[in-house]
Amino acid sequence: MSNPTCTDWLSHRSEIRVLDCTIRDGGLMNNHQFEDRVVKDVYEACVAAGIDYMEIGYRASRKNIKLGEHGCWKYCQEEDIRRIVGDNATALKLSIMADAGKCDYREDIPSKKDSVIDLVRVACYVHQVPMALDMLKDARDKGYETTVNLMAVTTVGDCELDAALELLATSEAQAIYVVDSFGALYPQQTRRLVQKYLQHAKAGGMEVGIHAHNNLQLAYANTIEAIALGANYLDATMAGLGRGAGNCPMELLLGLLRNPRYKLRPVLECVDQTIEPLRKDLGWGFDLPYMLTGLFNQHPRAAIKFNAVPERGNIGGFYEAICDAH
Amino acid sequence: MSNPTCTDWLSHRSEIRVLDCTIRDGGLMNNHQFEDRVVKDVYEACVAAGIDYMEIGYRASRKNIKLGEHGCWKYCQEEDIRRIVGDNATALKLSIMADAGKCDYREDIPSKKDSVIDLVRVACYVHQVPMALDMLKDARDKGYETTVNLMAVTTVGDCELDAALELLATSEAQAIYVVDSFGALYPQQTRRLVQKYLQHAKAGGMEVGIHAHNNLQLAYANTIEAIALGANYLDATMAGLGRGAGNCPMELLLGLLRNPRYKLRPVLECVDQTIEPLRKDLGWGFDLPYMLTGLFNQHPRAAIKFNAVPERGNIGGFYEAICDAH
Repeated sequence: MSNPTCTDWLSHRSEIRVLDCTIRDGGLMNNHQFEDRVVKDVYEACVAAGIDYMEIGYRASRKNIKLGEHGCWKYCQEEDIRRIVGDNATALKLSIMADAGKCDYREDIPSKKDSVIDLVRVACYVHQVPMALDMLKDARDKGYETTVNLMAVTTVGDCELDAALELLATSEAQAIYVVDSFGALYPQQTRRLVQKYLQHAKAGGMEVGIHAHNNLQLAYANTIEAIALGANYLDATMAGLGRGAGNCPMELLLGLLRNPRYKLRPVLECVDQTIEPLRKDLGWGFDLPYMLTGLFNQHPRAAIKFNAVPERGNIGGFYEAICDAH
Repeated sequence: MSNPTCTDWLSHRSEIRVLDCTIRDGGLMNNHQFEDRVVKDVYEACVAAGIDYMEIGYRASRKNIKLGEHGCWKYCQEEDIRRIVGDNATALKLSIMADAGKCDYREDIPSKKDSVIDLVRVACYVHQVPMALDMLKDARDKGYETTVNLMAVTTVGDCELDAALELLATSEAQAIYVVDSFGALYPQQTRRLVQKYLQHAKAGGMEVGIHAHNNLQLAYANTIEAIALGANYLDATMAGLGRGAGNCPMELLLGLLRNPRYKLRPVLECVDQTIEPLRKDLGWGFDLPYMLTGLFNQHPRAAIKFNAVPERGNIGGFYEAICDAH
């Protein structure tokens, strides 16, 4: 499938898995402080839409934190999750994300039999691959499905990436994600990365996933490109809610996928009634500052800071500062 | 170039021409009633940014219209244009669009020597190709550069399209545009269309252009795809301002192109200071209703009507109506 034709993507592949990470990635815009009503609306929309997984938040260390310092979706304690989903007697699987270095995974993650969670997604930077391998083994031994997100791939050199993928291909993960944390990838670059990931992953009997950001209005386009090449694990969020410019919008992704188990209408209604009303306060989505950090392959923190000032400065000055920092 | 590598698009091609159609396409959202200040800001940004062409509006028949029925950029009389650009003593070329069937071109378009316009862009639907050929000849005989936009290509069958392109390849046009009026194209479809257009156009010594709409957040992605394949005439607008979901954003396009004659900063400042403040009133840009008309390959008029109601209805109902109309 290295030369996808114009119709490959029209059929449907039963191996495709759609993961909604609205609450997890969106939590980076409001310190994980979603009202239960919002989390429940997203959960119910995921169930009704036939989405495969919903990532409800992070599991993070609670050592040395002050009570109330963050919203509960930074920790996703079992009682918080069950307040929303009960025993989750649905076909929707639930996931949490555990960041390498930010989770005391041996203690924070219980045995699967004591959890309503199905999938533990380990996220790491390239220098944390050995820790990620240990986290993946720990989660798998406890009975969970596991995947791994190798973050900020646009900052990793080719040789280092090959070495990391070789290691990850021996891990317990069932999928390795191409993660464009900075929203800096063009589809032509996504193509090359997905091909590389597929080589390593398929050798290890694994799937490839994609997690895209929308700084260049290419999150959906990059996801389509990845699908055409054979990526089967697809991250998206309602209305694209996520850090900075946000993610691949779920409403676009489900509009594309042809598997009749996916239903668009519940997603449209969740976006319209629950998520869009949050936009004014949370302020995610494509804009010029996020575009510029993406264009220069930088973490969006400079743009987040620039946007946080009510009377923000001149965009020309921000552009020069980003150029200088490059 | 049918299999673009990951670096083809990093170099720059001197044949590329960027056309700003902010005022022309955006005029469809405000009945062509831009203040002179806005038109002048766009003009000055185009000059400063090294953009090749600016399309300042339509030239349309003034027969049987009431005075003041539309803003002046629907007609682009010479005195209106000169009020903004004087004699246009700049490197920026100016264009107008003339729709087949809506312009008394023999009378409405003067000889080039009496006009500040450089390029006449003829727009037609597939059944209007013979009229377009006559319009192109008329404009060329009067001394103008000419291009042709074959609109709503996603509604044209393959055989009919081949026949139309064969005719247009004998015309006076210097470029034939792939025009995704409904914002319905996926990049994989754009690829196939651009390849087809290139075959016909190159045989006639012409270039291929692309004019994309953003209903599926793919206007920029489709433009990148077209560039990678060899399209050299590229339409974009400041902040994507244009009908419905809008166009390929100029700020993204100039961020991509590597030709040092293009400058991003003037575009950023025009978007930030002049165009974005119009968004609340003009209401262009990606949203769910425009997404749905794009997804079902329909004219955006149903979405424009749905959005025009202050307390618009339920998106689920709109979705069902669009499905039924399909």
